[in-house]
Amino acid sequence: MFKSTFKKLLFVIICNTMLVISTKAQENKNSKSIEAKIDAIISSLTLEEKVAMCHAQSKFSSPGVERLGIPELWMSDGPHGVRGEINWDNWGYANWTNDSITAFPALTCLASTFNPKLAKDYGISIGEEARYRKKDVLLGPGVNMYRTPLNGRNFEYMGEDPYLASKMVVPYIQGVQQNGVAACVKHYALNNQELWRGHINVEVSDRALHEIYLPAFKAAVEEGKVWSIMGSYNQFRGQFCCHNDLLLNKILKKDWNFDGVVITDWGGAHDTKQAALNGLDIEMGTGTDGLTTSTKNAYDSYYLANPFLKMLKSGEIKEEILNDKVRRILRLMFRTNMHQDRTLGRINNQEHIDVARKIAGEGIVLLKNEASFFPINTSKKITIAVIGENATKSMTIGGGSSELKALNEITPLDGLKNRYKNATIIHAKGYASGPSAYGRVIPSTLDANQLKKEAIEAASKADIVLFFGGLNKNHLQDCEGVDRTEYKLPFGQDELLNELLKVNSNIGVVLVSGNAVEIPWISKVKAIMQTWYLGSVAGDAIADVISGDVNPSGKLPFSFPKKLSDNAAHSFGELSYPGDNVNQYYKEDILVGYRWHDTKKIKPLFAFGEGLSYTTFELSKLDSDKKVYSENEAITISGTVSNKGNLDGAEVVQVYIGKLNSKVSRAEKELKGFEKVEVKKGENGTFKISIDTNSLSFYDETISNWNLEKGDYMIYIGNSSSNISKKIKISIQ
Amino acid sequence: MFKSTFKKLLFVIICNTMLVISTKAQENKNSKSIEAKIDAIISSLTLEEKVAMCHAQSKFSSPGVERLGIPELWMSDGPHGVRGEINWDNWGYANWTNDSITAFPALTCLASTFNPKLAKDYGISIGEEARYRKKDVLLGPGVNMYRTPLNGRNFEYMGEDPYLASKMVVPYIQGVQQNGVAACVKHYALNNQELWRGHINVEVSDRALHEIYLPAFKAAVEEGKVWSIMGSYNQFRGQFCCHNDLLLNKILKKDWNFDGVVITDWGGAHDTKQAALNGLDIEMGTGTDGLTTSTKNAYDSYYLANPFLKMLKSGEIKEEILNDKVRRILRLMFRTNMHQDRTLGRINNQEHIDVARKIAGEGIVLLKNEASFFPINTSKKITIAVIGENATKSMTIGGGSSELKALNEITPLDGLKNRYKNATIIHAKGYASGPSAYGRVIPSTLDANQLKKEAIEAASKADIVLFFGGLNKNHLQDCEGVDRTEYKLPFGQDELLNELLKVNSNIGVVLVSGNAVEIPWISKVKAIMQTWYLGSVAGDAIADVISGDVNPSGKLPFSFPKKLSDNAAHSFGELSYPGDNVNQYYKEDILVGYRWHDTKKIKPLFAFGEGLSYTTFELSKLDSDKKVYSENEAITISGTVSNKGNLDGAEVVQVYIGKLNSKVSRAEKELKGFEKVEVKKGENGTFKISIDTNSLSFYDETISNWNLEKGDYMIYIGNSSSNISKKIKISIQ
Repeated sequence: MFKSTFKKLLFVIICNTMLVISTKAQENKNSKSIEAKIDAIISSLTLEEKVAMCHAQSKFSSPGVERLGIPELWMSDGPHGVRGEINWDNWGYANWTNDSITAFPALTCLASTFNPKLAKDYGISIGEEARYRKKDVLLGPGVNMYRTPLNGRNFEYMGEDPYLASKMVVPYIQGVQQNGVAACVKHYALNNQELWRGHINVEVSDRALHEIYLPAFKAAVEEGKVWSIMGSYNQFRGQFCCHNDLLLNKILKKDWNFDGVVITDWGGAHDTKQAALNGLDIEMGTGTDGLTTSTKNAYDSYYLANPFLKMLKSGEIKEEILNDKVRRILRLMFRTNMHQDRTLGRINNQEHIDVARKIAGEGIVLLKNEASFFPINTSKKITIAVIGENATKSMTIGGGSSELKALNEITPLDGLKNRYKNATIIHAKGYASGPSAYGRVIPSTLDANQLKKEAIEAASKADIVLFFGGLNKNHLQDCEGVDRTEYKLPFGQDELLNELLKVNSNIGVVLVSGNAVEIPWISKVKAIMQTWYLGSVAGDAIADVISGDVNPSGKLPFSFPKKLSDNAAHSFGELSYPGDNVNQYYKEDILVGYRWHDTKKIKPLFAFGEGLSYTTFELSKLDSDKKVYSENEAITISGTVSNKGNLDGAEVVQVYIGKLNSKVSRAEKELKGFEKVEVKKGENGTFKISIDTNSLSFYDETISNWNLEKGDYMIYIGNSSSNISKKIKISIQ
Repeated sequence: MFKSTFKKLLFVIICNTMLVISTKAQENKNSKSIEAKIDAIISSLTLEEKVAMCHAQSKFSSPGVERLGIPELWMSDGPHGVRGEINWDNWGYANWTNDSITAFPALTCLASTFNPKLAKDYGISIGEEARYRKKDVLLGPGVNMYRTPLNGRNFEYMGEDPYLASKMVVPYIQGVQQNGVAACVKHYALNNQELWRGHINVEVSDRALHEIYLPAFKAAVEEGKVWSIMGSYNQFRGQFCCHNDLLLNKILKKDWNFDGVVITDWGGAHDTKQAALNGLDIEMGTGTDGLTTSTKNAYDSYYLANPFLKMLKSGEIKEEILNDKVRRILRLMFRTNMHQDRTLGRINNQEHIDVARKIAGEGIVLLKNEASFFPINTSKKITIAVIGENATKSMTIGGGSSELKALNEITPLDGLKNRYKNATIIHAKGYASGPSAYGRVIPSTLDANQLKKEAIEAASKADIVLFFGGLNKNHLQDCEGVDRTEYKLPFGQDELLNELLKVNSNIGVVLVSGNAVEIPWISKVKAIMQTWYLGSVAGDAIADVISGDVNPSGKLPFSFPKKLSDNAAHSFGELSYPGDNVNQYYKEDILVGYRWHDTKKIKPLFAFGEGLSYTTFELSKLDSDKKVYSENEAITISGTVSNKGNLDGAEVVQVYIGKLNSKVSRAEKELKGFEKVEVKKGENGTFKISIDTNSLSFYDETISNWNLEKGDYMIYIGNSSSNISKKIKISIQ
């Protein structure tokens, strides 16, 4: 213990040798003089120097102005950890040995914690890792909305609710940026599927856009003060999102007053004039793969390189357009690599691992727990059969740009072996997904039968079976680039489980995925735990919860429909999802996720906000401070959370509100507030949730603005969207 | 002009956004608290972490402690500019496109300026370039003494006189380090030839060691406060210099109180116990070439890696030995990459190019100028034949680790073409060295004859012939790794010149080299100019001097013997140079360079300190302030420098002193002071040179210390070691 305390003390000592990034107050004080400096710099730059700053010079860097000491910008994937070093001009890894890092839990897991404090810790930690790795821009977090469980990249996002995502993204950004590293919130906007992402044109109503798909971005900008944002690959209303006038110029830069830098997704630019005029600032990744020599020429052909320069010289584009981009880029630099007082960052330190494990532990969601299957006593001399490929498969490798070079990755099997020293743990793979990241590889029938046989044998010998299944990071699973092709579990897992159940009914299922899956055997297994992609500490965090060292408190950030067609996006035919390869129409409009299930009375398998604990909570004394409110007023909801069980734990109190008799179509209820309350066993805790009445507004397309409808509203207080303890009717006058 | 002034203003603005590196006074104030921080850090590090800091992790980096945010150290060649990026684990270039830089003139040229102010400008500029390139340690400057003109690496050093090298190295180091970048003075010590450098054992007297070979290193440490030093490849008295107890522990760290880091030359370590105990701190470059994967293991086998760890664990080496190394490394970090207020650096800016051009112009040495051959009038419509491969050959490529990726390199031919717009310039290569860097390639007789024929034809048509010859950066020329094999000019240049003289006697020779060469045709040519390797601005600087835009003021930093056997090192047979492949004996002892020529009355072709001007200077009123001095007293030499010609110019007044009737063998005279005096045409300038009487001491081997001999001394004042205007006898009592 002394050693640990001493190390913390030491860290303070080291920090004191570097000044901490100045506070926001100081920043504001300095901002005027910085703007003056920026103006002075811009007025001295040549047209060529300014244009050069607007596009890549390598896979992950853009140039500064070397003669003036204006540094390069170095960017890095991604949201869950700082990616391994990539070659200068192709996607190969550079084979450095100093780029192994802490892999943090995927953002779905972070969202499941319903704990903004942990989002701050996540941001601080990953920001420190980015800083140590000398990155100026961290390409994350992602806050695209969870619209369909088939989206291959849902695991990188924060679920289906804009309020939840907003509350989680803001502290993440603040944490990253206090290291002098820019967060780059992505992918703006409507990149809600991977299939055809490079060209599909999304058509969605203004209302759904503003109420569902933009709020988390807006919060990132207005509350998180994010310094950069990444345009998405897809089109919106016929214009690519990386140079989309409405999204970038009007909404982002004008309405939200975004003063940072818009960066393309890699290869997301398609037109010089649109890129120049429609709000893009830095073009990255346009078609230079595999060119290892004469690369300067390749980058010169970028849309925002020589073709841009030519239009500037001809007067077709005004220089002030260019100056605005450079001003934003320089502003980003004064916030990051030209900031006087940047700290140095650190990686792979115990504090980061502790943060990762805490988030993983709080994010794991217990979905079913018949007869207190979990926690499993660690002291008993029992035989546990750990079955399933996901018990041993690395989940930091694969998945696309979020792939990481983790210094350590503890698999679930290793985590259980470490924790269950008294048990006999036997392992059988059961099924195999194959090693391929591209092209779905299923083992031959012979292999599959052999694996199944070994698994059945193991299950038949065990007191307890833990089945580690779900998806993985292979192509066509939870992976960037293409979507899943089916809702059911892949690789014959359903069939395998049914076979296992025949020899042992004492089965708990641990799902490893970033997406909802079909669970046809739900009634037959004893327990189900949703564990996400947990990064470096995966196995330890899972063992923490399975053993009861950590009492689960995670809540689902998206609904698990019983079947795919119960999902809103899949309820309107192919034009809704995945589109016709040219266009797609978000026909469900605002009714995404639980909004659909609630409003259409289609009961999901597991509902948004759902998640069990090893203890029992009761909500009581639930009330609002008043019954009648006006605009710009706070509705305060308070109450008591009683822990009636035998374990300390935490409950997430959730407040939903719905308009009664609205003049427009509305969701039955929408999340408007939540609070995670820790309560020791046998004790009572209290909560107080404050909700601005303005947040009850709907986006009124007739006035192109938010509209707070007068009249009656119903407040729903519970511990899940499907488990409401109390309803309170209020009105707004 | 407005634009230029504005840019300078702008630079001030930018600088103000970053605090300038704190002054030495502040540093001393902070040093105590930094030492306390270092102690706190060391006490918290594991043995493994500390050992890791003592050796490379890649070709040019060593690790920090990532969990504590202690950054990596990034090093870079070399003394004349920041080298292109190298692959992580092999010597191939990484093919980045952001690493083209300003190539500064070679250090021989800097030494020839006899202008310490320019050494400071050089250091500041190259330090800024290193900083922009994110380097923490710049592997230079080199101050090995010029002992033989065959040494392939003389061009990287500062000549044959320890006083001159000392005066130039100190401001260079100060300039580099004010950017928060460590200079790394090299190669310590006695690496005075490249042949067999990896194993040859040097035997030299204590006296020659202290009087000739160490003073520049001592000045670097004691006056320049250099933060790191590089051990040499060779052995000294049977021990490799990278872990040589006498050189590192006793002299460097004890006698000179060096508090910085000793780094090996790449692959210079050979023994764990010696490396551990004899003063080495960081081992770099040991045998990991070409390993591109699993490199961590390769680095684990370094002498200061696992074998060191093993001895520490067994108690064979005490932990305090390791702690001392880590303390030094951390101290280096607090001075560089952990320094709070580092500036950002800049590269390829006009100021750096101006500095390079100024140094090049002041370093060029005019050796012969019959009938005012130079300067050549730029307004005349004449035909100039520019003959010789060196008129067009890149001299930043090749040469070994000092090779550079210059953003621009103006060849002499281009420089002349730019300046002589009215002249007709014709070019013939005349001879060819071949493209090979390894293995000496001579063109076939047929090719050689054709080239010669073209050159003769060009010369016969011209009013003036400028012959650009000398050496180049190919293997076996002025190049790291092996020495030259002959003193005469290579590639048939002597024969070619004789042929050219037959058709045109109006020939001026421009020698491009970093070494003295044999000049058998000296009486036949009109003029000779020694121009060194001048980097990015080579052609412009040469045109500056040829045209008279710059009046030459450079002085030779080493003697040009008439023939190789006139050189001291070559006067004692092969055991003196190059040795017998095992040992070599510096039999000339202290009589290196002009000390040998003067004392032995062997007249050189061109003497140390020699160099002509386009104007005529006269020294007068030369006197010392007193005639009798005691210990610890300053001898002040003053006088007048009159510019009797028609051009503004600068003269280097040189003060040599010799002991009369010494009890030990002495050089006739030794340089003890110099001052470069700028004087406008027709005007008088004055100088005042102060010399500490203690600097007249000899190293007395009987007491192993410096000894100031009482008695008479002769002061020699002149503008060259061979042109003394006045002698003054003084005595020390």
